[in-house]
Amino acid sequence: MQRSVDFSRWYQDIVLQAELADYSPVKGCMVIRPEGYAIWEKMQQHLNVRIRAAGAKNAYFPLFIPESFLQKEAEHVEGFAPECAVVTEAGGKHLEEKLIVRPTSETIINSMMAKWIQSYRDLPFAINQWANVVRWEMRTRLFLRTTEFLWQEGHTCHATADDARAMTLRMLFSYRDFAEEVLAMPVIVGQKTDSERFAGADKTYCIEAMMQDGKALQAGTSHDLGQHFSQAFGTMFLDRDGQKKHVFQTSWGVSTRLIGGLIMTHADDQGMVLPPKVAAEPIVIVPILGKVGNERVLEACQQVAAQLGSFGIEVRIDADETKQAGWKFAEAELHGVPLRIDIGARDLDRGSVTLVRRDTREKLQMELSQVVSESRRLLGVMQADMLACARARLETLTFAGAPETFAQHIEQGFVRGAWCGAVACEASLKEQLKATIRCLPIDDAGNVKYVDGACVHCGTQSTGKSVEAIFARSY
Amino acid sequence: MQRSVDFSRWYQDIVLQAELADYSPVKGCMVIRPEGYAIWEKMQQHLNVRIRAAGAKNAYFPLFIPESFLQKEAEHVEGFAPECAVVTEAGGKHLEEKLIVRPTSETIINSMMAKWIQSYRDLPFAINQWANVVRWEMRTRLFLRTTEFLWQEGHTCHATADDARAMTLRMLFSYRDFAEEVLAMPVIVGQKTDSERFAGADKTYCIEAMMQDGKALQAGTSHDLGQHFSQAFGTMFLDRDGQKKHVFQTSWGVSTRLIGGLIMTHADDQGMVLPPKVAAEPIVIVPILGKVGNERVLEACQQVAAQLGSFGIEVRIDADETKQAGWKFAEAELHGVPLRIDIGARDLDRGSVTLVRRDTREKLQMELSQVVSESRRLLGVMQADMLACARARLETLTFAGAPETFAQHIEQGFVRGAWCGAVACEASLKEQLKATIRCLPIDDAGNVKYVDGACVHCGTQSTGKSVEAIFARSY
Repeated sequence: MQRSVDFSRWYQDIVLQAELADYSPVKGCMVIRPEGYAIWEKMQQHLNVRIRAAGAKNAYFPLFIPESFLQKEAEHVEGFAPECAVVTEAGGKHLEEKLIVRPTSETIINSMMAKWIQSYRDLPFAINQWANVVRWEMRTRLFLRTTEFLWQEGHTCHATADDARAMTLRMLFSYRDFAEEVLAMPVIVGQKTDSERFAGADKTYCIEAMMQDGKALQAGTSHDLGQHFSQAFGTMFLDRDGQKKHVFQTSWGVSTRLIGGLIMTHADDQGMVLPPKVAAEPIVIVPILGKVGNERVLEACQQVAAQLGSFGIEVRIDADETKQAGWKFAEAELHGVPLRIDIGARDLDRGSVTLVRRDTREKLQMELSQVVSESRRLLGVMQADMLACARARLETLTFAGAPETFAQHIEQGFVRGAWCGAVACEASLKEQLKATIRCLPIDDAGNVKYVDGACVHCGTQSTGKSVEAIFARSY
Repeated sequence: MQRSVDFSRWYQDIVLQAELADYSPVKGCMVIRPEGYAIWEKMQQHLNVRIRAAGAKNAYFPLFIPESFLQKEAEHVEGFAPECAVVTEAGGKHLEEKLIVRPTSETIINSMMAKWIQSYRDLPFAINQWANVVRWEMRTRLFLRTTEFLWQEGHTCHATADDARAMTLRMLFSYRDFAEEVLAMPVIVGQKTDSERFAGADKTYCIEAMMQDGKALQAGTSHDLGQHFSQAFGTMFLDRDGQKKHVFQTSWGVSTRLIGGLIMTHADDQGMVLPPKVAAEPIVIVPILGKVGNERVLEACQQVAAQLGSFGIEVRIDADETKQAGWKFAEAELHGVPLRIDIGARDLDRGSVTLVRRDTREKLQMELSQVVSESRRLLGVMQADMLACARARLETLTFAGAPETFAQHIEQGFVRGAWCGAVACEASLKEQLKATIRCLPIDDAGNVKYVDGACVHCGTQSTGKSVEAIFARSY
């Protein structure tokens, strides 16, 4: 598995060999295997904390959306209709109205919110759903592009446009925090251009991560929906002033494609590398078994595991006697277990054991009595180091844009520079260089940055009308 | 809301007024609201522990099943085809092969297991999926009968028929334990008759609970699948003897209908009653606010909440100043919060506060210093009392069967008695009395009980060929 030779093949090999996912016999659909699903469950735990903190509660809405619902918001149906899977028969009969397998749930959720929300006292209203969604794809890329994927979608209603905008940004920055603190995946936050906007949104914001090959991965989106859906579905509230008004809405989501992002950010030629916070078992202990003293060794392993367990750290002891230690080391590397502890009889005699960090593959000798405290410390260090390492790459491979170097830099990573704002320029970027504007970076208040100078792609000069953009090829 | 007047209407009122679920605009589909979904999340936590303990890991398989897969097992397709929702168009095109929205996943999972399992070393193989499934229904009953519902489905493979049978029973008894210990819902474990067997199973086992109106609710099933699916999909392993053999399989599941069971087991005329173990917030503290001393009261509430929190008990303080205490009491009752603690200025002066149990509606006065330890103790007592109360009802309303009293007793509850085993008798039972054989009770080894005497329904005499059965009307 060599990243440098064939990145795309390397990625697929990691996914299949580390048993994170597999191709299914259903076109475009994947199977998420236990190793991959465990990562998703860890992500869910961390995200649920953030979602609850934002005031949203989990709920569940129907998988099927009547075709007429999708059609109520003109841009929305135009954007999603080409990707829809459609149920036309059920219970042995032809359906009078076709049912769309949800590609996203703004419409069906609005039909309920219109009923539940009456007054300003019901606002803000925030709900989140963990669900499967379907967007038809012919070319499958495990985790990154599949017909069916798992995600969470949050939906909120507010009394004012300002409140909706604040919520949109709150969740966007919450996603950034999650990506960086939990996934150790640094991201750029920004606004999408109109052509990349969610179908039915006023504005779409995103977090964009850089993969090891310099390409971008959209890792999460947050939409300021304005009143598009509340007008289409009559989602209204009686305001303090006695007037009935349409609510302002947001929606936001991240999906199982984050697992693909995790792989392309951290994995190496030996296999997966998991940040400690998303590893179901952050530590594996390998007892080095020999002809004598195995009982002592296993007992020491169990003691260390029990002590780590008392700190809430899940530890697996790989005591399978039919396998050699070398095979176990390779397995732990392939599956990306953050920290490995090797304990053998000779180590116990010498009073020292070996720790191996997965991220740097560094070996550390230490006294047995230090193993627990050092392991706990190292998990924290690795989490921080992995973020720092990925951030350094993001910085190194983000180039200041200039028309003369643009084509060259876009082959290597991100280009940050002025964009004229013309739709034609954006279209030619795609056609000529297979690149897109990933986002228009925003500050903490959510504002894009207007800049002087020539558009880095088309060279158009402008004064203060160009906007700073991130250009890149993407997944 | 009066159970005694109209049980069915009472049930619907509880679901809607306690905001557990709502009707959706999609025929047959429900919306699970946050209050209901929180119960499901609690159930998931408890079930995941049991599923992991049985050696199964969570994974995720495609929503869509090619029509040809369903057809590979003859009984399976016959059983499920009439309930299927079918995707015939996708991505703007007519599909060459129809896709079935999964009604259950034996077929798609077998197509993967056939690839993953090679040798006896790969066995037992156990996997579990949390997912939505679709079985077309025209008449909706919230939680109990809906086109789409949420469930977990476990799927295992074994080298021998004995191993598969042992696993089938292990999960069945694990479900019984879960229903009784967590949901406080006593169940009868038994085997389904052939006519009620899962389409494609050798044997289906179930747990059956009794609702407050004396009707039965099937609360979970565990299937011994034999080699039906492994033969259809070629799921084989190389055994120790060098022979390739088809694996023996099991599957087992429980669904969101358990929430309906919970309501019909415990709720009363005042609303929902939650067993402490499935309550997201087992305790609500209501500060009794007056003209003076409110600061002191709120401080005392926060102290109690903090102390309970340190024991891992989630507590909500209902400090909303725009609502009267009486309104808050009614809300807590409606939503079934197990324990309520009222703290007012006068209570603090007297040094005593009031605890109110939701199950018995009993009020208990105690010193402030005792509140935390008493609350913890009471949650345990309530969990046990609720089970005991439901068990007493199950026992009282289970009648010893006799032909002369059968029709009368089937109106009131369960009848336990001899069944001749004839398919025609079972059919006439349904037609004449709208009742079914819920199960043939089994012992710990999984064996049904052969009995002497006349069939309680048709009166046929037999010696040792009749089997003990539970007869009832059901949901």
